[in-house]
Amino acid sequence: MVDQPSSKPIATNPIPDLNTVAFAVEGPAYSSESETHVAYRPQSLYLVGTDGVIAAVLTPDDPQYHAIRAELARLNRLTSLADGQVLLPGFSDLHLHAPQWAQAGAALDEPLERWLGRYTFPTEARFADLAYADRAHRHLVQATLARGTTSVLYYDTIDRAAAVNLAHVCTELGQRGFIGKVVMDDPESNPEYYREDTATALAETERFINEVREFAPDSGLDAAPPIVQPVITPRFIPSCTDAALEGLGELALRYHCFTQSHCSESDWEHHTVFDRYGRSDTEALDMFGLLTDRTVMHHCVYLSESDADLFARRGAAVAHCPLSNAYFANAVAPVRRYRRQGVTVGLGTDISGGYDPSVHAMVRLAAIVSRNLESGVDASREAAERGGVADALVTLDRAFYLATVGGTEALGVRAGRLEAGYAWDVQLIDVHAPGNDLPIFENDEDPAITFQKIMNLSTPANIRAVWVQGRLAHGTLA
Amino acid sequence: MVDQPSSKPIATNPIPDLNTVAFAVEGPAYSSESETHVAYRPQSLYLVGTDGVIAAVLTPDDPQYHAIRAELARLNRLTSLADGQVLLPGFSDLHLHAPQWAQAGAALDEPLERWLGRYTFPTEARFADLAYADRAHRHLVQATLARGTTSVLYYDTIDRAAAVNLAHVCTELGQRGFIGKVVMDDPESNPEYYREDTATALAETERFINEVREFAPDSGLDAAPPIVQPVITPRFIPSCTDAALEGLGELALRYHCFTQSHCSESDWEHHTVFDRYGRSDTEALDMFGLLTDRTVMHHCVYLSESDADLFARRGAAVAHCPLSNAYFANAVAPVRRYRRQGVTVGLGTDISGGYDPSVHAMVRLAAIVSRNLESGVDASREAAERGGVADALVTLDRAFYLATVGGTEALGVRAGRLEAGYAWDVQLIDVHAPGNDLPIFENDEDPAITFQKIMNLSTPANIRAVWVQGRLAHGTLA
Repeated sequence: MVDQPSSKPIATNPIPDLNTVAFAVEGPAYSSESETHVAYRPQSLYLVGTDGVIAAVLTPDDPQYHAIRAELARLNRLTSLADGQVLLPGFSDLHLHAPQWAQAGAALDEPLERWLGRYTFPTEARFADLAYADRAHRHLVQATLARGTTSVLYYDTIDRAAAVNLAHVCTELGQRGFIGKVVMDDPESNPEYYREDTATALAETERFINEVREFAPDSGLDAAPPIVQPVITPRFIPSCTDAALEGLGELALRYHCFTQSHCSESDWEHHTVFDRYGRSDTEALDMFGLLTDRTVMHHCVYLSESDADLFARRGAAVAHCPLSNAYFANAVAPVRRYRRQGVTVGLGTDISGGYDPSVHAMVRLAAIVSRNLESGVDASREAAERGGVADALVTLDRAFYLATVGGTEALGVRAGRLEAGYAWDVQLIDVHAPGNDLPIFENDEDPAITFQKIMNLSTPANIRAVWVQGRLAHGTLA
Repeated sequence: MVDQPSSKPIATNPIPDLNTVAFAVEGPAYSSESETHVAYRPQSLYLVGTDGVIAAVLTPDDPQYHAIRAELARLNRLTSLADGQVLLPGFSDLHLHAPQWAQAGAALDEPLERWLGRYTFPTEARFADLAYADRAHRHLVQATLARGTTSVLYYDTIDRAAAVNLAHVCTELGQRGFIGKVVMDDPESNPEYYREDTATALAETERFINEVREFAPDSGLDAAPPIVQPVITPRFIPSCTDAALEGLGELALRYHCFTQSHCSESDWEHHTVFDRYGRSDTEALDMFGLLTDRTVMHHCVYLSESDADLFARRGAAVAHCPLSNAYFANAVAPVRRYRRQGVTVGLGTDISGGYDPSVHAMVRLAAIVSRNLESGVDASREAAERGGVADALVTLDRAFYLATVGGTEALGVRAGRLEAGYAWDVQLIDVHAPGNDLPIFENDEDPAITFQKIMNLSTPANIRAVWVQGRLAHGTLA
């Protein structure tokens, strides 16, 4: 639920020299104040620096508000939101297989082996054609930006050049891209036409890291992280040899890179890794040096208490993928327990194990499947025998926190909140968009109710503009 | 899955006199051939009669195809679909509380008593203001038409005049509306400001039936059913006295009206009715004459085998509401079992227990929650102990069947299939809509794959036009 106005004083920096202010936006906003509480902030003035970071947030009761506002208007650097427009932090998508965008929505009623062998691997292999890859990457980055997604942790394919292309596309279109060139080297578990040998996989990963860092150098400044970053990406343990996993762990240490993989996604994966190492997927990834404070692991449906404790100790994050898990995980990830254990959790679409490219949809689905998890599902059993899990509910406010704060914390980006010192990664919502006029029939509707309508009912039509690090990446302000 | 072309010969009527053809549409289409099989039909010519019914379907190998096509073009009665456009039957929404549109998306994290008492009842009572009701009704009917929903079974409020207004709005905007004036008369369970006494509730229901039938008379022809029909609507047993339920059963018999109510929605409702009558909700509704072959009961999560058999014997249908059930039902309705027992099943949004006005969304959610039902949800238990239900999966093809054939059969409307003799209740999908260009990167993509992308990825932006009984009710054909 939300307050109006926020009961907590808003942290503001001293008012900056207006020469360093690239632009300002004036309007109302929603932003997480805590994990259980989304705060509504009425009309405020957001000053965005030339570095793309919020320099200050002023409220109308600030004595300098009107003078600063007037000066910014005179400089033609002020945008005032129209009636029905409101700001939200941009969303982070912690798991998305970029090449699978070409098959999103398809073949989900197929069994997993067929889904992989007949559809997914051929679709990914197709990206060796760079012209095709470029077209699909652009289409995807535009589609996700248009849905308010400002940061994405991508898998691309095993092809280094394709993954580099995705990094260029993200840079050009202005989306934060954390991009993995996939490693899958085990001849036993991967098709001949879509794998590399171990040495090639490692060498290509290292070359990929260097190529991306060459055009997107790390400034070392939290306030201005590179727009794209290379991510070390073993597909998952069952598709990799020990030698590859060891080598990738060494690269992660040497280059201080993000790592990602699938972890304990399904009964099958969970048991396969245990049979191979006599330890859990989490423990095995940690053994290879792949579980660090720059790690996001996907799905994590079957983490034991001790696995989740290890995530918390290492500072590794979980990408909760509620849609994909319904199709492939055989259970609902207990993300409330993970949060209680101190694990950072964000949301992932998992295109195309999930089909919906919208993190807005994942917010809704995280809430929905948590309801099934709490109650259990089989109506023929009495409620107490239905197999539900207590304290499992993901409320809308909690899901919003995962999409904003959780996702950016997982990625080490200082964004996800509309506060001074945070990057201007923002989506501008229009509740009266011509393509989807939300059912708001009262002029004085409680902003908490309007927030819930926005989160549950908006479509891409309601997302009028999206900025990343202060740059307009989708839509217009006309 | 789908075939190309359909392996079954398409039933066609003899070619009609072209003077009785109002218009023709030429293009590809998808339509359920069976419960498990959606058929793709390449380019065909649909001749729609002046009665709004498909008079004939011609394929290009028909010897008269080109001559008829040319003549219709000359008469300016032919629409040929552009590349990327395809026809689907319109969808039926079997459960929607019209006044709750004003609060759709809101307050779902509240407990049920608070959700009803603080939000829902005041929202519904507000519709006694007819100007407000008219505004909200128009907004809702336009929103659902824009999402491809051609038939809706509505609850309105206890206010007769408001319910009559909804009937007028549906008539004017061209949506099939099955409309209930709600009855809730028990002083023990309803607030003073929002209930009627028993005699008034029955008299107002009877007057409502007569008022609606006066301006929308039943022709007695299956081919041209009235666009709106009155529906006898006890809110649910716990909100009604026995006298009201008896009286409504008598009205249903006398006027041969549709009936609807909530049935075995939650543990609480299921047990409350059992405690009151020593029998199940299904048996109690049947006892009052409210379970007939013109009945749709909502939710039906807790039907026993014998309850479902009674539904099948009576010819009563179930509205499956996957979204609302996640919030309020404490389990997933076992709709595959109901189908095996011969019960007619369609889909319902249940605005605002569910928030999404799109039956497209319900198709997706019916599949998603069926996955949770099949597997169970608690990952800490071994798969066999997880509380799942075998043979519970609702595939995409099955969900589409519920949205089209299931829904129209429940409502006694001969529509939901693109075949001769069926009403032209149709949605025109554009996969390359500017607001949502689907990820289709191959010119020769398998139509089965394209169908799955349409069903899983489309937004309202992809629904370019919607007809009901041959009348264009949304969009344009420009």
